[in-house]
This record gives sequence, structure tokens and C-alpha cells, in this order.
Amino acid sequence: MAGNSIGKKFVITSFGESHGSCIGVIVDGCPAGLSLIESEIDKELGKRIPTHPELVSGRIEKDSVKISSGVFNGITTGAPICLTVENKEIKSSDYEPIKDLPRPGHSDYPARIRYGGFNDYRGGGRFSGRSTVSIIMAGTIAKKLLALLNIEVLAFTKSIGKIELERAMSFEELRKFRYETAVRCPDLDCAKLMEKSIVKARSEGNSLGGIVECVALNIPVGIGDPIFDSLDGDLSKMLFAIPAVKGVDFGLGFGVTRIYGSDNNDEYALSNGEVVTTSNNAGGILGGLSSGMPIILSVAFKPTPSIEKEQHTVNLKTMKETKMKISGRHDPCVVPKAVPVVESAVAIVLIDHLLCSGVISNVLQENK
Amino acid sequence: MAGNSIGKKFVITSFGESHGSCIGVIVDGCPAGLSLIESEIDKELGKRIPTHPELVSGRIEKDSVKISSGVFNGITTGAPICLTVENKEIKSSDYEPIKDLPRPGHSDYPARIRYGGFNDYRGGGRFSGRSTVSIIMAGTIAKKLLALLNIEVLAFTKSIGKIELERAMSFEELRKFRYETAVRCPDLDCAKLMEKSIVKARSEGNSLGGIVECVALNIPVGIGDPIFDSLDGDLSKMLFAIPAVKGVDFGLGFGVTRIYGSDNNDEYALSNGEVVTTSNNAGGILGGLSSGMPIILSVAFKPTPSIEKEQHTVNLKTMKETKMKISGRHDPCVVPKAVPVVESAVAIVLIDHLLCSGVISNVLQENK
Amino acid sequence: MAGNSIGKKFVITSFGESHGSCIGVIVDGCPAGLSLIESEIDKELGKRIPTHPELVSGRIEKDSVKISSGVFNGITTGAPICLTVENKEIKSSDYEPIKDLPRPGHSDYPARIRYGGFNDYRGGGRFSGRSTVSIIMAGTIAKKLLALLNIEVLAFTKSIGKIELERAMSFEELRKFRYETAVRCPDLDCAKLMEKSIVKARSEGNSLGGIVECVALNIPVGIGDPIFDSLDGDLSKMLFAIPAVKGVDFGLGFGVTRIYGSDNNDEYALSNGEVVTTSNNAGGILGGLSSGMPIILSVAFKPTPSIEKEQHTVNLKTMKETKMKISGRHDPCVVPKAVPVVESAVAIVLIDHLLCSGVISNVLQENK
Amino acid sequence: MAGNSIGKKFVITSFGESHGSCIGVIVDGCPAGLSLIESEIDKELGKRIPTHPELVSGRIEKDSVKISSGVFNGITTGAPICLTVENKEIKSSDYEPIKDLPRPGHSDYPARIRYGGFNDYRGGGRFSGRSTVSIIMAGTIAKKLLALLNIEVLAFTKSIGKIELERAMSFEELRKFRYETAVRCPDLDCAKLMEKSIVKARSEGNSLGGIVECVALNIPVGIGDPIFDSLDGDLSKMLFAIPAVKGVDFGLGFGVTRIYGSDNNDEYALSNGEVVTTSNNAGGILGGLSSGMPIILSVAFKPTPSIEKEQHTVNLKTMKETKMKISGRHDPCVVPKAVPVVESAVAIVLIDHLLCSGVISNVLQENK
Repeated sequence: MAGNSIGKKFVITSFGESHGSCIGVIVDGCPAGLSLIESEIDKELGKRIPTHPELVSGRIEKDSVKISSGVFNGITTGAPICLTVENKEIKSSDYEPIKDLPRPGHSDYPARIRYGGFNDYRGGGRFSGRSTVSIIMAGTIAKKLLALLNIEVLAFTKSIGKIELERAMSFEELRKFRYETAVRCPDLDCAKLMEKSIVKARSEGNSLGGIVECVALNIPVGIGDPIFDSLDGDLSKMLFAIPAVKGVDFGLGFGVTRIYGSDNNDEYALSNGEVVTTSNNAGGILGGLSSGMPIILSVAFKPTPSIEKEQHTVNLKTMKETKMKISGRHDPCVVPKAVPVVESAVAIVLIDHLLCSGVISNVLQENK
Repeated sequence: MAGNSIGKKFVITSFGESHGSCIGVIVDGCPAGLSLIESEIDKELGKRIPTHPELVSGRIEKDSVKISSGVFNGITTGAPICLTVENKEIKSSDYEPIKDLPRPGHSDYPARIRYGGFNDYRGGGRFSGRSTVSIIMAGTIAKKLLALLNIEVLAFTKSIGKIELERAMSFEELRKFRYETAVRCPDLDCAKLMEKSIVKARSEGNSLGGIVECVALNIPVGIGDPIFDSLDGDLSKMLFAIPAVKGVDFGLGFGVTRIYGSDNNDEYALSNGEVVTTSNNAGGILGGLSSGMPIILSVAFKPTPSIEKEQHTVNLKTMKETKMKISGRHDPCVVPKAVPVVESAVAIVLIDHLLCSGVISNVLQENK
Repeated sequence: MAGNSIGKKFVITSFGESHGSCIGVIVDGCPAGLSLIESEIDKELGKRIPTHPELVSGRIEKDSVKISSGVFNGITTGAPICLTVENKEIKSSDYEPIKDLPRPGHSDYPARIRYGGFNDYRGGGRFSGRSTVSIIMAGTIAKKLLALLNIEVLAFTKSIGKIELERAMSFEELRKFRYETAVRCPDLDCAKLMEKSIVKARSEGNSLGGIVECVALNIPVGIGDPIFDSLDGDLSKMLFAIPAVKGVDFGLGFGVTRIYGSDNNDEYALSNGEVVTTSNNAGGILGGLSSGMPIILSVAFKPTPSIEKEQHTVNLKTMKETKMKISGRHDPCVVPKAVPVVESAVAIVLIDHLLCSGVISNVLQENK
Repeated sequence: MAGNSIGKKFVITSFGESHGSCIGVIVDGCPAGLSLIESEIDKELGKRIPTHPELVSGRIEKDSVKISSGVFNGITTGAPICLTVENKEIKSSDYEPIKDLPRPGHSDYPARIRYGGFNDYRGGGRFSGRSTVSIIMAGTIAKKLLALLNIEVLAFTKSIGKIELERAMSFEELRKFRYETAVRCPDLDCAKLMEKSIVKARSEGNSLGGIVECVALNIPVGIGDPIFDSLDGDLSKMLFAIPAVKGVDFGLGFGVTRIYGSDNNDEYALSNGEVVTTSNNAGGILGGLSSGMPIILSVAFKPTPSIEKEQHTVNLKTMKETKMKISGRHDPCVVPKAVPVVESAVAIVLIDHLLCSGVISNVLQENK
């Protein structure tokens, strides 16, 4: 496969560039019988749109999805679903002067080499964060399917720079409050500190990163394939498709490396006749298979590479060292926008594995 | 695919169980023309064998590879290569008494559900750390191919529990010393501290985890596929196939979430006419593509779940809560054994991407 | 994968229904650097449009392609290319009365079962011959890439019903005349007889099938993967994706079963220092690999299942036997339309294998 | 993937060469809970062994399977199953004198080019008909799984050279008699004529081909994926993996090209409340999906290319034209040996699609 598709039974193929005519995705393998209308997807895309103007780039697009195939009378048919969003807010002129100057921290340089200079360099082209619109569109469908199984995926901002959400949040709090703050942190006080730190970074022409945590509830025991198609392996592969991701871990993650086995092992007990673990340091995955406990993962996002400070680069045409300053529109921190993307990415992988496992079938009875 | 294969052009299919007759791997897509003899692979497998008896389980196997196909007159033919290692040191009786008692931190419980109780439970069966023998066998071939391109993969132990290697090591030091210490840490002083901490944990019937860092040198610019088949995505998917891995990050990894964009961005410069970056916080990957700088990644290993302390569990036959104590042989820390496995896993993904990119072809001239 | 994608490095994903808003295809893996404009694709699509009104259905669409991604300044970027054609000539009302009556010879009945009745039944929905527009769109790109390697794919009508082209045609004749006749048979006399037989069948409310033969010239020796990804295996898989195909064979095909080995074997000789065979009964493929001789294959198309005669069927709602007569627009013979489709299908498989083999790379120098 | 694997959920990976140490296959994705012992597979392999010495090569091997993984206490565990057969009857010396002389009709020449001369040339190496042992080993498992669903696959010899079985055979006759004759033709009289024709060809130093027909009974309606992963497409791809296959067709196959639509269409009726067709010209597949009627397909095998007549070839070392005569052991007709291979190949594809469809699950209740 050529890189723009992922999945075994719920297969998504992503296309479109930041400054092209559209961003799109084909969802192949969605079971027949799911109701699907455009406004549902628009609503999910809306979660990507920042609610606090100081936190985001000037490019604020109200994305509006078009379904071109795979849905008949408002219900999925089992045929591939084509979803596109038009690119409207394009200011390509920003990029012409710097087309030979690779921006530090961006993919400009390796992409130019990879594609022999034919890549669309405007706004990162195919490598733009705007490609995450594809993930959210497909993710909306994935989430609707998961909902039929009572499975929920809840992502939220865990940290921005050095500001970290330290108190434990209940699933109920996550559910209710994660989209209530501009930074997508469900704790209102912490959220304010995060906001401030982003605003400060921006005012200094700088940027910040952070951690998105994600929880998936009600996954049955034993989902995943062993060894190479493990649940954690497939989740991490998908998550690294989100621009700016530099790390993925599960449960205690890197934290497990510092503690004893006796502190890390999750012991078994019975709860209402069900086997459970009394802790969940494993983050719901053992041996690549779901353990029945909530899946918990963290995703590290780097600070937005576009900053308004002068940086060293090389003019790839003249092959001379030079300096550049990136003007134009960019987010001082991608983390708030990334929250619904992580949620969608996780949902896509989970529904793919659930379809493989046969827990959910090719035809839904929903609309019968 | 059913989970036990990975790769696009250098495809490996792993098989075998901890207490079955053998562990094996099929390597499909190895270019024709590579010299390959069994002793080379045995040597790499030997790196898995612990050199300090106090650090390891009682199961010390001198693994000896058999090549059954794909090699003719000591040279690869382009046909699939079957590699197997006999399992010799088997003491299955250890596992009979606990077959209905899922061991905390192991995959026993989800595996039993996933396979309806038909899975081979002895020593973790298919989920055993012994499956990493397959990765090393295939990895030996991958490394030999990489060497033809002057690419080197160097993994080493970065931390054990709270003991962390803090000073920067030169590539030369990594190359020379990483297998010189029992814990696979190239700094001799730090290695001693690590050893001590493992010995102490073991003496308390406990276990430790740690971090393996890996560096790959001389990867050309622009290797990787965009979006879903990114180099970081494919590396992480492969690394999560190693038992006990709970996190993977690249370059500064989770560290990037705490610093400013201006501190994280790697600026461009020229060095001997080549484009380089003056720092390498990105760990050699931008937008899923290699940047031409060394690839650097970290892998978090959890403490061995088998500990000699009493733990709570549930008897899955009687469905009653109970306690268990794991006797038998187990490593107090898997990290030293994991170092050559990480090296192999990374090598396999890199050669696969390099074969896809056409940098190395289906037929080598090596033996012409 | 979920059925609507094919290929390893030149991966196409098809979407759209006969009576939906569009027919589309994503081409992922097209090398960067290929010039591509919409009118080139329109021209290939035009070959599907029948030039003789008596031979075709009333649905005559002048298809006009839209490129939505993957092309920048008229040149491919290496990113996935989205190509769509709007469906304009839709008369869905024809299908409402028969939605519960599966048409004999069509996929209506198994599709209804497969998708629980949610499939789009209008005009065969996803299973319509109109899906071949996707193949031609992707095939145009494939042919342009093959042309850079001097490879040519020439399909033509070999037989319609019992009228068969019996004389051998030179490649030059195929090249010049195959699209010069309404039935796509390069022999003008034979073409007239074929036309007459179609007109006669139509006048009787009946339909005909036939054989499309296809030749690919200048394929290098040794293309293809052994065993399961053989060149003939991959070609046949692709060709069965064309509606109405019931058989595929290579070279003498089924004819080889009736002759002696001594008559069938193609003996080797030298021609201008090149190894050639003095006959080509194998159709250019031995052991799944190209032999360097022209690839020759035949594809059997069944008569159009839509006929204007009364036929027995079952009302799937009432589960009672009944009779139906199909009105509406349909081709009395799909063979002429199928010729450019076969050509495209073969081109897609060949370029995929050539990209895998490294003969053609990820970046073209064409536009440098 | 690199060519030696096939399948989505029931994935087989084949390895081994004609004159290497073994022929093997990994079956990944076999549900847990199936009883499996070596003698069952040996029995199927035995069907490949010719019962009439005059019809076969001197290489008569009693193949004996070894199961190395994936089976525990005689029951499949869900882990990959490794099956191997040792190569015993090897006479490699036959091939040394002709290693630079490509045999007409064999893959020697393209294989040599494809692998730069490193391929194992002895007895065709990886391209030998002996590779079909892998298909039968995997096919035995597939057939056992199909039997749980009451699905049966019955192949038989339809023609040898110009001798064709013309009378219709009942499924009962196929079931009983197909392995009762040396040529695998269920009609005893016809079988005798076929035998004679093979004996005659052999006596003249010549060889014959023929047609294998295969019927699969009790496939549920709607199995298959649309467009590119159609049931007919996947079956044909698999069948072309069998050496010497030059054509595949379904139902009337190429015969449909000569008749009217009104004669070809299979009309619907009810039979015991089930929807059936009153004829089965489609061979049980419509639009790539199973129709519920028996699947019927034909496979064309060419005459064995090894003949004892002098043939022209080229010495690839000296690059001079020359002549050769193939001595050594070879079958005068591969068709009888091919019958159980076709049966297995079809069974493998069917179980793969059935597993994808969810009709049969990851865990069997058989042994509970």
C-alpha cells in the first residue's frame, strides 16, 4: 500500500492538501445500515474549530462535509463512503517567498527530497495539520458504530507546556467538560492556566506543545491480534499519522520504567461476577489484547514549528545558509485542535479491530 | 492479515510458542544475492543470552538456527527464507498448576478469552518473550542488508528503574561498549549501578523495567511514506510487538511537550555541502519521513510481570478470587535481553522502507 | 482491506454508484513528476462512449473528470490523486418498480443479501458497469507512466457471439484500427459482421457477449512476484473486477489443454543478441513472471443480463415467484465499452508490478 | 507483501524449494478449537501421489507432515500453524548440466533474470510444482473448517488433451469416484481413455495438459467483497499460483461469449422456500458475490513443459543458441496431481472469505 490508507476491515483512504481544492477521505468497510447525515460530521469537525480566537491561527474554517457515495436515503449501503470538505480559507501567497526555504521543524525538507521537488509546498501541502480533517470525518462514522456497542472514546488535554492536569478526572467529568474549555482540558482552573501559557507563548512569537490523553470505555476483553497487529501497535501507528506527534504510551507508559513489578502489576479480582483488575497501570492492554479495563493512552505533541522568530535555514535552490521568519497564520499550540483528532484516530482503530473480531457485523439492524 | 506478519517488501511472518517445538520466522522479500550462514544468526541470538547469571532466568538457551529455505550455496535466492530455533529448555510442568490462574501483568487472561481457552498457556505460549527470537533472526538479515548501505542500528539500555544513563554517549562508544556490560549499558559505571538495582529487586522477589534507546545512522533523507505508513508510525507498530513495551517516542519524545517551539525546532545549516540540522530534537523524523539526521527513539519496558510475591488473581474455572505465587524461571528485568531485539525490530522496519523506496533493489551485486 | 482498493505501490480505491452523485477513484502511489490534465482523462473516458447509437444504451454520458488532489501546476506531486466524474444522465425512476425483483444475471440478489437490503439498488448501484469509469480514470495515469517505459497496452474485440476475428492482426493494425470501429474490432469487415449481430440481438430484445483480447508490448523480463502475486494472478484478479467477466486466460489459454507439450512449448532463440522465444503460446508469462515476449490475454464477457424479454424471478418482499420484463436503457452488448476498460485494468496491474520491481521510481525526471 | 502470502484472515505463507530441505506453509488465522493431526494432512497429500506408475514421474514421495506450532494437545490454538514436509527424493545432479540452459515452457529464464542468477535452479527451485504441497497442507485445514459449515469442494479431471468428460456427473458421483481413477476423472470409461492418451504421449516423449473442474457446494448467499476482492477474482488469483495454469473461468465460462443473454441468464424460482436459479450458467457467482448456487469453475493446465524431445534453447552463460533434451523425472501430465491442489486452493479462498464475512468465527466450539 502507498501510505494513505489504513485499516483491515474499516479501511480509510485519505487525500487532499492544505491549499488544494479539498480534504477528503474514503471509508471502505463501514457496515450497511448506519444512519449518516452530513450535519453529524460537521458537528464533529466543529470541535476542531477553536473557541477562543487568541489560541488559534487566523485560518478559521467552518468546514462543511459533502457525502458523495456510500449513503442512500440517509443510510450507509456498505459501499465506500466518500467524504470531502472544500478548502475555502486559502492564502497561498504566504508560501511563495519561502518555497525554497525549509521551515525548521516542518516536513518541508524531507518532503522535497522524497518527491523530487514536485510536492505541493503551500502550507505543508499533503503534510499539513489540515489532513486531520480526514481523520475526524472517518472518526465520526467510527464513533457512531462504537456507540452501538456502548463504547465511548474520550480524549482531553492533559498538559500544555509545563502546565499539567494533575488531579484524576472521573469519566463523567471527561464526558461533560472536555469540550467546555478552549484548550479542551476538563478542569476549568487548569484550563485557564493552560490558556494563559499559550497566550504568553504566542505574544512572544513562540509556541507550545502538550499531551493529549485518551480513554476508551467498554471495550470487550480479547480484542486485538497478537504480535504485529496488536491493539497498542495499531493505535500507535495511527496516532503517529497525526502531525506533530512525537510519542505514544499506554497506561502508566514511560512511568512503568521507574517502578517495581509489584507496584505495576494489576491484580485480578471479581466485580459483579466479572473479572477486573484492581488497578489499571496497563492501560487496558496486555499482550496486545484488550483486558476489558478502560484503554488509556497518552500522545505527546510537539510545539507548533511555525514561530515568529528568526530561524536559520538553507536556501535549497542556491544551497546557501540563510535566515527566515515565518509570517502567516498558525496556531501557537496544536493541542486543543488535536483532541478531537486523537479521539477519532482511536475510534477508527478500535472499530477496525472490532469488525475483524466479528463483534460487530457487516450489516447493522439499526434501521431495519 | 492475521497478525503474525509485518512489512510491505521485507515481510516477516513469525510463528512458534514458548513451550512448543520451535520458534521460527519466514523472511519474504529479502533480495537475492546476500550471503547468509547460520552462525551469523546464532551470534546475534547470542546477544540475547545474558552474560551475568544473576540478571536472568534459569532458562539459558544456546539457540542454534536452522535455515530451511531461501538460501542456496550460502547465498539468498530471493525465495522466502525459513529460520527456526528448536526449543530445548522446556519445563512445562511449572505451568500446569496455574493454568486457570491468570498471572497479573501477563496476557493470560485476554488470551484465554480471545482464543476460547484453546491457547497454549505454557509460559505465555505465543505471547512469550521468547517470540522475540523471531525478530532477532529476521533482524540479522535486515542488519546485513543495512550494512551494505552503511546504515547502522545501535540500541542500548538507557535506564533501569530509577538508574538512568545521563551523560551523552558518542556513537563510537555505543558501537564499542553496548554489549560489553551485562545490562547492555555502554557506560561501565552506570551499568554497575543498574546491575545492582536488578540484583536487589530480584533478591526481594521483585522486578524492574527500563528504557532502551536506539539510534540509526546514515539513513538517507526522505525515507518513509506519508500519513499512515510513516517511518515513526511503522517503527512504533513494530516495537509494540515486543512483549512488555508500554511506550515509544522519538527524539526528545515526551520531553517536547514541556519546551517552547523555539527550543525544539532543529534549525538548518550546511555541513560539507550537505543540509543538516544543528540539533536533532526531532530524532531524525519529520512528517513521517527521515530527515537525514540520526533516527533516535526510546522504548519503555515494564518490569517483568512474573514476580515471586503473592498476588491476587481469579480462578477462571471456578470463578473465585484467589492468590498465587509464581515460581519457575523468569528474568528480574527484561531490558538487557530487549536491547538486541529493539535493534533488530528497528532494522527490519528500516530495510522494509528502504526496499520500498528503491534505494536497495531486489538483487544485490554483493556476490557477483 | 475492504474490497474497493487494489495494488501494492500503485494503489487505486474506487467509489461511487451508478445513480449516486459521482463515480470516483483515488490513485495513491503515482510517482511525482508526471504531467496530468483533465482533458487527457476525458479523452480516454470518451473511448468508452459508443460511436454507433444502435449498439448502446440510451444513457450516453459525456464524462468530464475533476482532479481534486495530488496534482499541482499540472504535475503529480506524489500525493494521492482524487478523480471524479459527475453522474448526470440518471433516470432512477426506472428502478423503483423492480426494487424487490432481482434481475436474472445481475448481482441484485446476492447484493441484497450481502448488505441486508441497504444496498443502492438503482441501476445495480455499486455493482453497475458504470464503476468501470474508475478503472479508466486510473488506467489513464497508468498508461502515461507505461508510455515513459515504452510499454503499450492494446485491447480489442476478438469475438461477439459467434462472430470471431480469425486472422492474425499485427500490432500496428491493433494500434491504428482498434478504436476505428464501433465494436472496437480492428478488422473492418469482421467489425461489420459483429455490428450486425448486435443489432439483430437488440432487435429481438436480446443481448450478446464476446471476447476481448489484450496485448502488452515491451514488458521487461522477470516482472512479477512468484507464487501468489504472480503477474497472471494479479491480472486475472483485476480483470474479474470488471462486471460481466466470466473467464480469463493467457496466451493459448484453454487451447493449451488440447495440444501436446512439444507443440505448446515456446523454444528459445537469439534475436539481435536478445533471448526470445520463437512462438508465444505462453502469452508472455512463465511461472508468474514476464518472459519478455508480449503479454497476451483474453477476457470472456457474458451477454448483457438486461434483456427485453419476460423472465422468471422472485419478489423478495412477498417471497412469491413472479415474472418481470426489464425496460429502461441498457447496452445490447458490453464488449465494445469493455475494450478500453480491459486496457486500463491491464495497465494498472503492469505499472503496479513495475513500480514494485523498481524499474520505474517514485519520482520521474519527466518534468525536471 | 512479497508474493509468498495470500489471504486476509486465513493467511497462508508458503516456502521451500523443490530440491531444498523442505516444503512448508504457515497458516495464520485458523480459528482456535479445530482438531488437527498430522495423519489427516498426510492423507490429503497422498491424493497427490499418483496411483498408476505409468502416469507419473519417477519421483514418488510419500510425504509426511510435521506440525511445529499452533497446535496444542491436538487442537488449534489460534496461533500460526507451521507445517512442513521434508524433501527426500532429491536427485539434484540431473540439473547441473542444464543450469545455464533455460528449459522451454519452464520459468527458468525469467526467474534467472528476476533474481540475478541467484535463484535455486534445481528442479525449478521455488517455481516447481512441488510448491503445491504447501497449498494442499493449508487446504486440508481449510477443508476441515468448511466441513463444519457443511461446505464441500469437489474437483475432478474434466479433460486430458482432446479426451473430454462430456456427460454430466452428479455431485454424488463426483464425491465417490473422483479419486477412484488414476487420472482423477469420476467416469471410469472416460478415465481409461484419458489414461491411454497420457501413456501414449509419454511413450512418444511428449506430454499433455487438460482441464480440472471444481464444484463448491453449500456456500451461503452473498459471500465475497465487491469490485476488487470479488470471489471470482480471489479464486482466480489463487488458482494462477498453481504452476502450469493458463486459464480460469466460471460457470459456462468462455462458453457464455457465444450465446444469447436469454440463454445465459439464470432465472429465479423458489425451492422449499429458498430462492434458487433454475440454471447455473453463472457458476454460483454474480457481481463477485456468491449466489447460493454451487460455485463451478474450470482451470486450464498446459502440457508438462518437460518433454523428452530435443528443443531449441540459448546457453545463457555463453549467449549462444543450442539444443537440449531434458532427461530426469517428470510427469507426462500434471492434471491428475493437480486435482487435489485445485480443491485445496478453492477451499483456502472460500474459508478466507467466510472468515471475513463472520459466518465462521475466531473460536470454534467443536472441542469444547
